[in-house]
Amino acid sequence: MDLNDEVRQHKITLDEDEMPTTWYNVIPDLPSPPPPALHPGTLEPAGPDDFAPLFPMDLIAQEVTSDSYVDIPGGVLDVYRQWRPSPLFRAHRLERALGTPARIYYKYEGVSPAGSHKPNTAVPQAYYNAKAGVKRLTTETGAGQWGTALAFACALYGLECEVWQVGASYDQKPYRRLMIEAFGGKIHRSPSDLTAAGRAVLATDPDHPGSLGIAISEAVEVAAPDPETRYALGSVLNHVLLHQTIIGEEALLQLAKAGEHAPDLLVGCTGGGSNFGGLSFPFLREKLAGRMNPVIRAVEPASCPSLTRGVYAYDFGDTAGMTPLMKMHTLGHDFIPDPIHAGGLRYHGMSPLLSHIYELGMMEAIAIPQLECFEAAVRFTRTEGILPAPEPTHAIAAAIREALLCRETGEEKVILTALCGHGHFDLAAYDSFLSGRMVDEEITDARFAAGLATVPAVPAG
Amino acid sequence: MDLNDEVRQHKITLDEDEMPTTWYNVIPDLPSPPPPALHPGTLEPAGPDDFAPLFPMDLIAQEVTSDSYVDIPGGVLDVYRQWRPSPLFRAHRLERALGTPARIYYKYEGVSPAGSHKPNTAVPQAYYNAKAGVKRLTTETGAGQWGTALAFACALYGLECEVWQVGASYDQKPYRRLMIEAFGGKIHRSPSDLTAAGRAVLATDPDHPGSLGIAISEAVEVAAPDPETRYALGSVLNHVLLHQTIIGEEALLQLAKAGEHAPDLLVGCTGGGSNFGGLSFPFLREKLAGRMNPVIRAVEPASCPSLTRGVYAYDFGDTAGMTPLMKMHTLGHDFIPDPIHAGGLRYHGMSPLLSHIYELGMMEAIAIPQLECFEAAVRFTRTEGILPAPEPTHAIAAAIREALLCRETGEEKVILTALCGHGHFDLAAYDSFLSGRMVDEEITDARFAAGLATVPAVPAG
Repeated sequence: MDLNDEVRQHKITLDEDEMPTTWYNVIPDLPSPPPPALHPGTLEPAGPDDFAPLFPMDLIAQEVTSDSYVDIPGGVLDVYRQWRPSPLFRAHRLERALGTPARIYYKYEGVSPAGSHKPNTAVPQAYYNAKAGVKRLTTETGAGQWGTALAFACALYGLECEVWQVGASYDQKPYRRLMIEAFGGKIHRSPSDLTAAGRAVLATDPDHPGSLGIAISEAVEVAAPDPETRYALGSVLNHVLLHQTIIGEEALLQLAKAGEHAPDLLVGCTGGGSNFGGLSFPFLREKLAGRMNPVIRAVEPASCPSLTRGVYAYDFGDTAGMTPLMKMHTLGHDFIPDPIHAGGLRYHGMSPLLSHIYELGMMEAIAIPQLECFEAAVRFTRTEGILPAPEPTHAIAAAIREALLCRETGEEKVILTALCGHGHFDLAAYDSFLSGRMVDEEITDARFAAGLATVPAVPAG
Repeated sequence: MDLNDEVRQHKITLDEDEMPTTWYNVIPDLPSPPPPALHPGTLEPAGPDDFAPLFPMDLIAQEVTSDSYVDIPGGVLDVYRQWRPSPLFRAHRLERALGTPARIYYKYEGVSPAGSHKPNTAVPQAYYNAKAGVKRLTTETGAGQWGTALAFACALYGLECEVWQVGASYDQKPYRRLMIEAFGGKIHRSPSDLTAAGRAVLATDPDHPGSLGIAISEAVEVAAPDPETRYALGSVLNHVLLHQTIIGEEALLQLAKAGEHAPDLLVGCTGGGSNFGGLSFPFLREKLAGRMNPVIRAVEPASCPSLTRGVYAYDFGDTAGMTPLMKMHTLGHDFIPDPIHAGGLRYHGMSPLLSHIYELGMMEAIAIPQLECFEAAVRFTRTEGILPAPEPTHAIAAAIREALLCRETGEEKVILTALCGHGHFDLAAYDSFLSGRMVDEEITDARFAAGLATVPAVPAG
């Protein structure tokens, strides 16, 4: 065995002064903008005033901006530099184990203090809220990655942070909750008896496992009436995806440093879409400008397949119907996904911006069941040395699928993916897999019928 | 509030081509070498043949080398580059919260795949064993940091890895065990019924919580008779501390980059001594050469204070008395420390090399109780954004003590410490602290009398 050759892996770093200082807004480069959000009462396009009880004006402005680039404030860059630029790795060891001629790269966001890509938007959201004089932020969290990130960001800017965590995850993952508390955040199991939305759900089922949609309802309900409190969302919205584009901008620079012209395939996991949008939008810009032509592929869990089995329609972002109506791929705002371990992907809807891009035919989507994802993850861990969170196991499984195809065809494809977080708080999921207890649910149309029936009928514009 | 000023933190990075390519051996620079290990039967100095059943010759050569520098093999450098050079941080945000004029720097080793400094030696140990044709490594682990690191390293080089974990930690920290299994390692609760050493302990107490000394006995017993199996130790020995010197060598370069001439105080936690030796030896070299004059201070847990309450004497490294006798500060090889959360510091002895340096008066030591450590850790987490493992909370508490003294005196001291690992698998400990359930044991001389009585009487010279 040539030990040196066996263990080589390749980290492509950027210097701090190479870190991008703007976020990229893909909307002006699209042939048409995404359909507007609608006020649920009037069904008129929602304006800044409709969002003002929830978000500070700086973020609302970013939500609707027509600028292609938005400057990252110095106070945000200073925090980003704690872990950014994040590394891009060439997965030499995984490639060798697969026997593939493909070249696999992964952008690793688990180096952040919260262990995922979420601080990329938590930090600017906390920054703009602090700047606007807000004292407290409320939010929802699924697996807890987002709640952890927001608690971290709030600690830096002296904001209180109050988190409603999906009950199933709150029960399964006590370490995530404790991490949020270590950062000084306050956390509630959702549905809770602190809100009308929570109490209504508990009335139907006192042991309700919760959902992201319910947790959003609770966090919004608490924030809206209190002038010192605002709400923060970890995915779905335009400004969240905007903040995440630093991932793709860095990856573009790093791929060039590695001597690659462009990826042939860009693949990422999608829950609300922020990790995927963040990675892919800068590459989509290059694609639309004719400078490269990667296939852009979203991967969703087979048990929560909003892009591949949802409808493209106006729906609520939350279960109680308190948010504006957004046109998106949705499984219905009442849909309760199976309790798969990828809590961050258990959301009924998809980012309206990503949904629009999907409808424009600029990206494709596939769904992968949980077992294949964990099989890929263990293979990845034992070669690359990094334990992925359950969410990016979907991206890894898709990258491995493609790399194995390349072994058949001999194609030396360049595959780029995002490892959006580590799985240090998800070892119960690995235990379930390694002990053979994990099984895939059977996915049938009937499973989704009840949820889809809750998509409201909105008359066409 | 000036948001930009509030949140600034400072990361001092090195380029990959600035990473040191040699390990530093402090022994030739000392006025006298440490006393040799003794064969437990003959009480004669142990030679390479005595170590051969446990370690490959390359590591035995490093254990006894008189060279000042040892080249790091290319196959090890290739793996180091996955996470090295590790960042040095200036703790601006912590300093501001403390209101101290001191400048606090911390070298962060939690960026490694195993989340601690342990892969710095796990990787070369696995490398040299693989090179020697060994098929399997056995080891002990306390909290699990070392077992995780060795399982990671073994996965890279295709070695089997079998770990005996201290029972108390095995029960308290299932996630560490699962992480070792995810890397492909096999793990046993120690004491186990797989070895004579384990069975002897279980005969006295079937629910015995175990100790590092017992786990070492078990791992050594399995490795010694099997020609394809060797044993790996995560601390204590000269070659382990040698591998860890990359921490201090990098920190020296990074401090210079930050414009600091030298630290006034270098402080680190000590269990077996590998993290502390790794950080401090390159600075000790500079101190002995008259180029700087930092105070070098070890911090140990009040409940396992080998330097501050142990005796300097020949003792066994393990409970069953299978290892060579080593002259070190020891609480007695039968000592069972309180079940504090810093499992990595619950070892009865101190590295013979560090013990010798302590006897030479070149470093000092203090002991800090657990509650003060966790109070410091939470303060650190909420300012610096990184959750420390229980072990380095001791170093952080000591750094904060000094920084608060500087607030009184107005001294602008430069304090350097090592954050040797993150606490993602230790949140039960934070839960205990945050919920108010953690209490300090009362530390009395009587607590240590029984252990100290087990230090064997070895005739001088």
